[in-house]
Amino acid sequence: MVFFTRCCLLIGVFAFGGGSVEHLHAAPPEPVVRVLVAYHSLTGHTHKMAKAVAEGARSIPGTIVNLQPVNAISAEQLFASDALIVGSPVYWGNMAGEVKAFFDKWQFQFGVFPEFKMRNKIGAAFATGGQRAGGKELTMITMLAAMLGNQMIVVSGGGAFGASATTEGDSPGLDEQELARARALGVRVAEVTWLMKQRHMVSKDSHTTK
Amino acid sequence: MVFFTRCCLLIGVFAFGGGSVEHLHAAPPEPVVRVLVAYHSLTGHTHKMAKAVAEGARSIPGTIVNLQPVNAISAEQLFASDALIVGSPVYWGNMAGEVKAFFDKWQFQFGVFPEFKMRNKIGAAFATGGQRAGGKELTMITMLAAMLGNQMIVVSGGGAFGASATTEGDSPGLDEQELARARALGVRVAEVTWLMKQRHMVSKDSHTTK
Amino acid sequence: MVFFTRCCLLIGVFAFGGGSVEHLHAAPPEPVVRVLVAYHSLTGHTHKMAKAVAEGARSIPGTIVNLQPVNAISAEQLFASDALIVGSPVYWGNMAGEVKAFFDKWQFQFGVFPEFKMRNKIGAAFATGGQRAGGKELTMITMLAAMLGNQMIVVSGGGAFGASATTEGDSPGLDEQELARARALGVRVAEVTWLMKQRHMVSKDSHTTK
Amino acid sequence: MVFFTRCCLLIGVFAFGGGSVEHLHAAPPEPVVRVLVAYHSLTGHTHKMAKAVAEGARSIPGTIVNLQPVNAISAEQLFASDALIVGSPVYWGNMAGEVKAFFDKWQFQFGVFPEFKMRNKIGAAFATGGQRAGGKELTMITMLAAMLGNQMIVVSGGGAFGASATTEGDSPGLDEQELARARALGVRVAEVTWLMKQRHMVSKDSHTTK
Repeated sequence: MVFFTRCCLLIGVFAFGGGSVEHLHAAPPEPVVRVLVAYHSLTGHTHKMAKAVAEGARSIPGTIVNLQPVNAISAEQLFASDALIVGSPVYWGNMAGEVKAFFDKWQFQFGVFPEFKMRNKIGAAFATGGQRAGGKELTMITMLAAMLGNQMIVVSGGGAFGASATTEGDSPGLDEQELARARALGVRVAEVTWLMKQRHMVSKDSHTTK
Repeated sequence: MVFFTRCCLLIGVFAFGGGSVEHLHAAPPEPVVRVLVAYHSLTGHTHKMAKAVAEGARSIPGTIVNLQPVNAISAEQLFASDALIVGSPVYWGNMAGEVKAFFDKWQFQFGVFPEFKMRNKIGAAFATGGQRAGGKELTMITMLAAMLGNQMIVVSGGGAFGASATTEGDSPGLDEQELARARALGVRVAEVTWLMKQRHMVSKDSHTTK
Repeated sequence: MVFFTRCCLLIGVFAFGGGSVEHLHAAPPEPVVRVLVAYHSLTGHTHKMAKAVAEGARSIPGTIVNLQPVNAISAEQLFASDALIVGSPVYWGNMAGEVKAFFDKWQFQFGVFPEFKMRNKIGAAFATGGQRAGGKELTMITMLAAMLGNQMIVVSGGGAFGASATTEGDSPGLDEQELARARALGVRVAEVTWLMKQRHMVSKDSHTTK
Repeated sequence: MVFFTRCCLLIGVFAFGGGSVEHLHAAPPEPVVRVLVAYHSLTGHTHKMAKAVAEGARSIPGTIVNLQPVNAISAEQLFASDALIVGSPVYWGNMAGEVKAFFDKWQFQFGVFPEFKMRNKIGAAFATGGQRAGGKELTMITMLAAMLGNQMIVVSGGGAFGASATTEGDSPGLDEQELARARALGVRVAEVTWLMKQRHMVSKDSHTTK
């Protein structure tokens, strides 16, 4: 029964909506996926990672990427995105205060709650830190935790919890392997966002998460 | 271009596939979403929560729920699921050893790696614990972390990180509010899984995550 | 051999230092333990918890407690403390941005690194949040993680990871049980700090952590 | 007043207890600090790290180190230790099931609760994992969380949260830098344990944590 309704709806939208495939192609707006890459960077490392993340996301056709420092992001930019990837340097085993302030702003300035305006957007994280096992995991996990609290849908990519780079020690700065992981995160997020987004475009039915 | 192909495919499957809606309804296999609810329970509290989670998931039409103790789950059951919701009592701020052994089995017995056989399945968690702020969050977060490492797509529901219940103190056992959160988690996971699954059924194109 | 040296040292300080017990009592400076309770509070809940933590610490004789909002704390106040207890409301499963900025300041303004100026001080945490299992644990854990990165010595108290209060729901605001946990945290930190501090006063030998 | 009693006690034990330094040296039992290094190892990496941790602890005079696989440790061995350092390989972003089972045994077999028999013992952690940012931090943090729940006193060493090694990638197995970190953890734990332990030996007064 549910499936029946859904099929009808699909046909309503796609087949009966126009007389020809060409018309059909022209009628609906070109689908896009909007990925917002938000970062804070003092030394430039996290910015460089952010650019690689953006590059990865952009490599998926139809994906529009907005790359912004966290303090420049408006409520409109945030809520217009289909996916959000946040990157931070590690300060004391956690995201930078600037990035934390960005998340807090969602509540205090952007009015994300109680409507859960970020609900069902895709979320992911990346981090740079001076030391191995020096807080990059916790930094990514706490950013994902903030996203889960917003009812976002969370993925990893380029690593177990997201993409990360160790910027001191044997391999100072960012090496190609670390940038490749950042690009992989961008690709992963864009792909999962497409999986979700197209579904929304194709059919609106009772299963849609309320 | 991509969109064009996709539309054709949609029409191929749904509209041109048959002459009538009845036929159309009959033609493709009935879509289902399979949710596996895995739990460990000693006192029965987590089992009770698991049943409420299962009930919530089942309330979404077309959702088939399999409720199993972690030690009874086979590789086939695990890999056949579209979504996995794992529940554990809190033992020392973390999932029970039995639940940890279940995750470890994925690697050592089920051969999940290196193909990432759980990739793109939906994952979520719930927990029961004697005390408030006594480890339920960490228990859920560590289960979600295990899922992220498997490239699963992770959601919360019924709470910031999943559904949880405090089984001692002022309100011993499980109260209706806690069971309602467990049901909400089941609903949430089934809905997000539908979002992803239908997309797969409707269109297979170059955006599919490889 | 080591013990021999140590005993001699002890005798040097305590027995040979004066001719009588009265003199001995008068000679060394009265020992004190200094506990800094640092908090951020918007609604007043965390401030109220902080006052109960301070009260608990003060109940241990010889303990001097300094209660300050995070943004009012100077480097001198921080480094003069023997113990630090930090409290934060939960914003998105983590400490408030203001509290994160306080920790970041240690590095950027107070010059704690690379000497690890907080090394061997006792550290603990407390948190207030609207929901159960809504981030209080992660908030405390991430504050303790920041302390561990500073080579502080970390304890819980009043709960598995520190004292916490749920400020919404069935029991809005802070109830007596929650304030009792806050006081227990203060007592616990003062006691452990005495354990460490008196040892330092009594003997300085080769075992002292360098 | 408290200080007065304490000084008298010190003199009673150390100065008035004997007529000469030699006698004094002979009289009290030789002080020792007992460090238990507990590990699980499948490939041998974590065992090798454990041996380096033990070596570090042993380098502090008077420190007796017991190195044991987790499944071989008895309640007596556990409770007789002044400090416990636990090491685990990373399985899915968390300690191995075998290590989790060890912690769970404290409750179910060793009867640690409700007396909190591990209270005030020093605790620390180390981890080995195949990937960078692949779970070593979470593995250490969750072991420290289990210790905090037991009212242990927790330290880092050899890294922000403990000592860790990345066993795959550019530098397979354990390199000298990683083993040096493991030794540093052992040194750190032995030193902090001495700080606490000597204090207990020197004076028993009202400040002792109950």
